[in-house]
Amino acid sequence: MVKVGIIGSTGYAGQELVRLLLAHKDAEIVWYGSRSYIDQDYADVYGNMFKLVDAKCMDDNMEALADQADVIFTATPQGLCASLVNEGILGKTKIVDLSADFRIKDVKTYELWYGIEHKSPQFIEEAVYGLCEINREKIKGARLIANPGCYTTCSILTLYPLVKERLVDVNTIIVDAKSGTSGAGRGAKVANLYCEVNESIKAYGVTTHRHTPEIEEQLGYAYDGTPLMINFTPHLVPMNRGILATAYANLTKKVDYDEVRSVYEKYYKDETFIRILKKGVCPETRNVEGSNYVDINFVIDERTNRIVAMGALDNLVKGAAGQAIQNMNLIMGLPEGEGISLPPMFP
Amino acid sequence: MVKVGIIGSTGYAGQELVRLLLAHKDAEIVWYGSRSYIDQDYADVYGNMFKLVDAKCMDDNMEALADQADVIFTATPQGLCASLVNEGILGKTKIVDLSADFRIKDVKTYELWYGIEHKSPQFIEEAVYGLCEINREKIKGARLIANPGCYTTCSILTLYPLVKERLVDVNTIIVDAKSGTSGAGRGAKVANLYCEVNESIKAYGVTTHRHTPEIEEQLGYAYDGTPLMINFTPHLVPMNRGILATAYANLTKKVDYDEVRSVYEKYYKDETFIRILKKGVCPETRNVEGSNYVDINFVIDERTNRIVAMGALDNLVKGAAGQAIQNMNLIMGLPEGEGISLPPMFP
Amino acid sequence: MVKVGIIGSTGYAGQELVRLLLAHKDAEIVWYGSRSYIDQDYADVYGNMFKLVDAKCMDDNMEALADQADVIFTATPQGLCASLVNEGILGKTKIVDLSADFRIKDVKTYELWYGIEHKSPQFIEEAVYGLCEINREKIKGARLIANPGCYTTCSILTLYPLVKERLVDVNTIIVDAKSGTSGAGRGAKVANLYCEVNESIKAYGVTTHRHTPEIEEQLGYAYDGTPLMINFTPHLVPMNRGILATAYANLTKKVDYDEVRSVYEKYYKDETFIRILKKGVCPETRNVEGSNYVDINFVIDERTNRIVAMGALDNLVKGAAGQAIQNMNLIMGLPEGEGISLPPMFP
Amino acid sequence: MVKVGIIGSTGYAGQELVRLLLAHKDAEIVWYGSRSYIDQDYADVYGNMFKLVDAKCMDDNMEALADQADVIFTATPQGLCASLVNEGILGKTKIVDLSADFRIKDVKTYELWYGIEHKSPQFIEEAVYGLCEINREKIKGARLIANPGCYTTCSILTLYPLVKERLVDVNTIIVDAKSGTSGAGRGAKVANLYCEVNESIKAYGVTTHRHTPEIEEQLGYAYDGTPLMINFTPHLVPMNRGILATAYANLTKKVDYDEVRSVYEKYYKDETFIRILKKGVCPETRNVEGSNYVDINFVIDERTNRIVAMGALDNLVKGAAGQAIQNMNLIMGLPEGEGISLPPMFP
Repeated sequence: MVKVGIIGSTGYAGQELVRLLLAHKDAEIVWYGSRSYIDQDYADVYGNMFKLVDAKCMDDNMEALADQADVIFTATPQGLCASLVNEGILGKTKIVDLSADFRIKDVKTYELWYGIEHKSPQFIEEAVYGLCEINREKIKGARLIANPGCYTTCSILTLYPLVKERLVDVNTIIVDAKSGTSGAGRGAKVANLYCEVNESIKAYGVTTHRHTPEIEEQLGYAYDGTPLMINFTPHLVPMNRGILATAYANLTKKVDYDEVRSVYEKYYKDETFIRILKKGVCPETRNVEGSNYVDINFVIDERTNRIVAMGALDNLVKGAAGQAIQNMNLIMGLPEGEGISLPPMFP
Repeated sequence: MVKVGIIGSTGYAGQELVRLLLAHKDAEIVWYGSRSYIDQDYADVYGNMFKLVDAKCMDDNMEALADQADVIFTATPQGLCASLVNEGILGKTKIVDLSADFRIKDVKTYELWYGIEHKSPQFIEEAVYGLCEINREKIKGARLIANPGCYTTCSILTLYPLVKERLVDVNTIIVDAKSGTSGAGRGAKVANLYCEVNESIKAYGVTTHRHTPEIEEQLGYAYDGTPLMINFTPHLVPMNRGILATAYANLTKKVDYDEVRSVYEKYYKDETFIRILKKGVCPETRNVEGSNYVDINFVIDERTNRIVAMGALDNLVKGAAGQAIQNMNLIMGLPEGEGISLPPMFP
Repeated sequence: MVKVGIIGSTGYAGQELVRLLLAHKDAEIVWYGSRSYIDQDYADVYGNMFKLVDAKCMDDNMEALADQADVIFTATPQGLCASLVNEGILGKTKIVDLSADFRIKDVKTYELWYGIEHKSPQFIEEAVYGLCEINREKIKGARLIANPGCYTTCSILTLYPLVKERLVDVNTIIVDAKSGTSGAGRGAKVANLYCEVNESIKAYGVTTHRHTPEIEEQLGYAYDGTPLMINFTPHLVPMNRGILATAYANLTKKVDYDEVRSVYEKYYKDETFIRILKKGVCPETRNVEGSNYVDINFVIDERTNRIVAMGALDNLVKGAAGQAIQNMNLIMGLPEGEGISLPPMFP
Repeated sequence: MVKVGIIGSTGYAGQELVRLLLAHKDAEIVWYGSRSYIDQDYADVYGNMFKLVDAKCMDDNMEALADQADVIFTATPQGLCASLVNEGILGKTKIVDLSADFRIKDVKTYELWYGIEHKSPQFIEEAVYGLCEINREKIKGARLIANPGCYTTCSILTLYPLVKERLVDVNTIIVDAKSGTSGAGRGAKVANLYCEVNESIKAYGVTTHRHTPEIEEQLGYAYDGTPLMINFTPHLVPMNRGILATAYANLTKKVDYDEVRSVYEKYYKDETFIRILKKGVCPETRNVEGSNYVDINFVIDERTNRIVAMGALDNLVKGAAGQAIQNMNLIMGLPEGEGISLPPMFP
């Protein structure tokens, strides 16, 4: 039984870790960290966990936690994990960091986009970017996993085969993404009130969203090793969960649907959690809700010589907690799908 | 491995059976019945099941199905199960009927409220009302289960201890219930379109809803054996899932919170799926979403000498498919919570 | 042209006043008060008002405002209006108070339910309860209007004819009410975040909601002059606007639909803003959204000898800003429906 | 008083015409056409109109209507208006067609994208494309107006100044659009049920949506007179109303925010219904709900040399009924904003 500690267990992603881990056969949560709710019953913070979690919230003492846990998940604001981690801790436990602290290899890029100083750049090189379908083998031996962002997981998986096989002109990539509101977190802000979000859609962080360099770096690895440059525009959608990425790019040559499909299948056909939909079927976030699946499809526009590739996932599962557990499973030698293989819930 | 057939697998309740049974360790679906979609891929009807269900929809030939299945679920319109069942079938398999056909012992009451002739009244007496927490022992030996309605499960469990212990004047019971829209089914009706339901709430079936006599009969068994007479008013709420019952009744004597709570605990304290919330906490449907739990609590109004008792459940789980599986587990000697013990999903 | 000042113009009710007054032919807003946003552009606080309101937010100096405005609306937290008003102000201007400060004649009842000391009880007697359809004549000459609460307007208008004509046993009245989330205000609270409210329904303030004594007092005037005692239970519904009140009471004698309808028509048939729906049609909040209408209907249950009466309104219009303007129109001798006669917006 | 007839008054756009025209000082509806509901009370079809519309639904006899109405609105499926109109009718009345029948000058393009034969191509040349801000003068003298589509109005107005002033490479235009569900109409289809749309987002009609050639043609007029070629991808959003268009294009030269802004102001600064937002503020559909406004803004991405231009409108108002009335006002010599100048409703 893998002993698990969660720092930041009372955010939406942290609570999703709890939900999934409670049904995980080989894992046990030993630490419900939450600086904001120390000593309060976890089930008072999340009523759905009443009678299911009988524990009080703990602080974020990673040193103490490292003695008790085989794996630590940090579902915390940017900067916290980097400020807590050290060699002693990494010698005793594995860390899956759901924040952005170790996702970007170039510390200057990190500091530029996130506007904070990185407190432990010495671990950046070691950290493995935990996009399981792409980096599976590296993940298995890692001590420190940079769990990918929600938008980035969706965007990268949607475009990866096209970029890898140079089917698209990488200078023309545009990702127009749409997210449910849980991605905005549980902080008490006017902008996230029910009446402010409901019955509306808007773009935000246009040209400046911090998932942009993460997508650019990872897609760059699939291409020539250097970051690409794309446009990425997130939108806030009045729904709880779900991300849809609609990606556009010019094709580098004349191809038909089947040729492109075979490229997607080359990379994904054995992937449990990636579903390439039937021709003509567009991904819908409802079809992956509550699950670790990513639904992908594409349409070729012969008129404009562009491809429109689309991906959908649940931002709290494959976009956060589910992928974090997938990473844990890989690190700990458990079946990759353990605890995250439930069918999507609809409606 | 229990072999399961579903007649009516493409309604929302039928699909919820599929979702839950796919994760059930001891059950296997052998028949996806759906008269409307015969020969179509099930996953074309429910995109969330893509790559998870590889089967085509079958007809509703219960005779043929009885030879293949240990348990048949009928998630079909009123009247269909009664028109198909016969002694031969019941000799070969167990039936859990999610429709109302065998819920009401008095066939005249059934025919009056449902407006159709009952086609196999000879099985009504034998049928066991599958409210697991109340009728557990009877269910274990049954061949034919009348799976309770969604509103009725919520209303009865909320009021049962109060009526059983005669804490309330049974002539004063009023149940004001609120349901998510999945309860209205997947039929293509203007009234259930997104724009018609969204941003609105309304009562419907006022004084005439067909779950009324079912609640009255079952609460009557808890009292003096004859049906009570209550007011029941359902409302349509702009959300997918969830039922909240707010019940009112006059108290028969002066009692305080702890006394009433001990009565609830007398009946429910060992029940896995019933959670009596902490004092002062009101049930919320979000806290049971996707799960088989029923959350219950109450407030005593000393000013008016009334009790306000509240219950919340997921209409598709404890209110339909989850309870049906709970019944199957009981009948087949499986652990009662197998396949239906997942934590509620929030948000 | 009536000059209008609004104290508390950046809450949802305050902003609704702005929306409606901008289209009012005979009124002009001269003061956009908002303690929280002083000196900020009003249109920066409410983006829908961009290019429509060119003004900065002002403080809540009622003395200064009284010199400029013919009418002051206070859409502020409980206690503020009572702390600001004085004889000098009332000598210069009219006040329509959207808070509860002057709604309840018995100051002890106010202080008990609201938990604050009343700062100007000397004006309570003079204040007129601004339920226009009931108190129209008194309103016309008033200096200080207590604009009714949202739940109370809906509950009282739904029950008034029944109580007035003694058709119901006033000891059996139960009001189960449902409200959209704008009623919770624009304060940044976790409980009102999109993901917390969406896809859920709950009761709150059970037996303790502060609109209870207001309903009891007003219905008492319709009966024998002393407050009734009822049960009132509000629920939070995942929608922006709308209140539905479902009221239950025992009938005092055998009556049929037409008899009761004639009683409703006796009081409401000439009321522009009260629509008694056709027999069999239940009120739906969507049908009054954005408008000042109240839709009412009822069902008689011969089985239980109860009546189920239902009313629907828009909590921000007839439940707040619309009725406040209706009061202003009456006070200032303008056509009662000016500025509030727009058709409901659907969908 | 302008006499108005509506053919197709029971669709969402038709009903929005009714809502707006009821508050129009100079117009009177004389004909509520609805083939589906002939002889039924209009207020039985739309409950919000109870006591506001006292009329029965009529057929679609345009000949008879032409004798009674000064203006006929056709809010009908594609092909109907073209099949009914003739010279006699156009000699007696004006027609504002909300369908696509007369929007596209090249009848082959129309027939290709719409898949139906055009029944009166002889009127295509005469018809004026009723995008008021662009074609105001032509509209004033027209007999037949092709009222623009919802997506197209939003897309064209967002991009028009950029294309007109050749600030963008027209071969790189991509429009990613998002619409509320009222755009899907009131037909009873499973895909538009509440539970199917709620809590999900999807693209549809990818590369094939019929508003594509309309945008291409109109933007082409702004450029060199021949249609452009763009990518247009619509998405279905779980909300009632609103369209957001997010448009991408490569800049043709290095420009800064102020330069581009001055180009927008060159075309729109005197336009009542176009609001160029403050720098840094993104359009949100909630801020235009219920109104005829279009909110527009843009961001320049120096990294990629692209511009991201965004526009938001209410699909039923500026995207349909509101613009139709704006056209009527222009044709009949009424103030352009009469009946459509209400502030947006929020929340």
